[in-house]
Amino acid sequence: MTKAETREALVRAALELFAERGYESTTAAAIAERAGVTEMTFFRYFPAKSSVLIDDPYDPLIAEAILRQPAQVPPIRAAIAAIAEGWKSVPPPASAAVRDRLRIVSRTPSLRGAIATSNASTEAAISGALVQRGAPVSEARIAAAATMAALAAALLDWAEGDEPDLGAAIDAALRVLAGGAS
Amino acid sequence: MTKAETREALVRAALELFAERGYESTTAAAIAERAGVTEMTFFRYFPAKSSVLIDDPYDPLIAEAILRQPAQVPPIRAAIAAIAEGWKSVPPPASAAVRDRLRIVSRTPSLRGAIATSNASTEAAISGALVQRGAPVSEARIAAAATMAALAAALLDWAEGDEPDLGAAIDAALRVLAGGAS
Repeated sequence: MTKAETREALVRAALELFAERGYESTTAAAIAERAGVTEMTFFRYFPAKSSVLIDDPYDPLIAEAILRQPAQVPPIRAAIAAIAEGWKSVPPPASAAVRDRLRIVSRTPSLRGAIATSNASTEAAISGALVQRGAPVSEARIAAAATMAALAAALLDWAEGDEPDLGAAIDAALRVLAGGAS
Repeated sequence: MTKAETREALVRAALELFAERGYESTTAAAIAERAGVTEMTFFRYFPAKSSVLIDDPYDPLIAEAILRQPAQVPPIRAAIAAIAEGWKSVPPPASAAVRDRLRIVSRTPSLRGAIATSNASTEAAISGALVQRGAPVSEARIAAAATMAALAAALLDWAEGDEPDLGAAIDAALRVLAGGAS
């Protein structure tokens, strides 16, 4: 198996087991076993069980996209444009798998700390990129916090509903954030 | 003492004691004693020690101001305008006392749950008012979450800095949220 295949197998095994037994009752060892690898291999791919659900590969993409925005664009507009672009530049994820993941996350109280940490790191990536392109720190923090809060609200809402297209949900959130819709 | 005076005396006593001994080491009984009332009186004014710091009287004002916005104004714009207005309609609070309170809150990990609950209830008030004036629930939630996140970021930033005017900090946050500044 290639690295990407092993990773994918671990994610699939984890989601299956979380659905069968619940998140709390599933161990990293059980996930590894179902995926046909050792527990040590599991921890080479994921630092913790929660990382299977919460791992966020988009932070550097979003930061780069923010730095590409024209200098005169105000902070929150730059963040909105960057997320819209960043979203287009990654291959469309399998929406059903993303929804499964988000549902487990939103219904598992013990994961709240891990989500908060993950959201804080995306927020810091956005805020850092905004400062790098010249925004005062306080403005960058406000814009990053508002953007992440809008996205998190949209994702949770989408996860609990049955609208198929995640991309459409993100676009809708960005439109509302930009002062439009309704 | 009138009710307002008793309340004010309890808040002042609490802030003094938190500054002297720290939040964790201060009991409701000690606050009551310093204010010259019984512990039972304390609990008639505040359901818990954390309420002295976190009590939020502005939620109904914000919701009413949202309902007053013209129908064609999109959700996040309505929330922004309402907070700007709501802020003007309350007597300017003593900024130094607000800063003391926010600093204690932001530096006391055990208060995080109480802040989250308080923020969630303001967010629900904003979101509920937006739905009442016709926004789809998902749009209302996104707008409310973004607005509260922007305000919380601005308030924390202001509390840790030495800019005197809280109103100016809130105005700046609303400008960034509305897509301006920098």
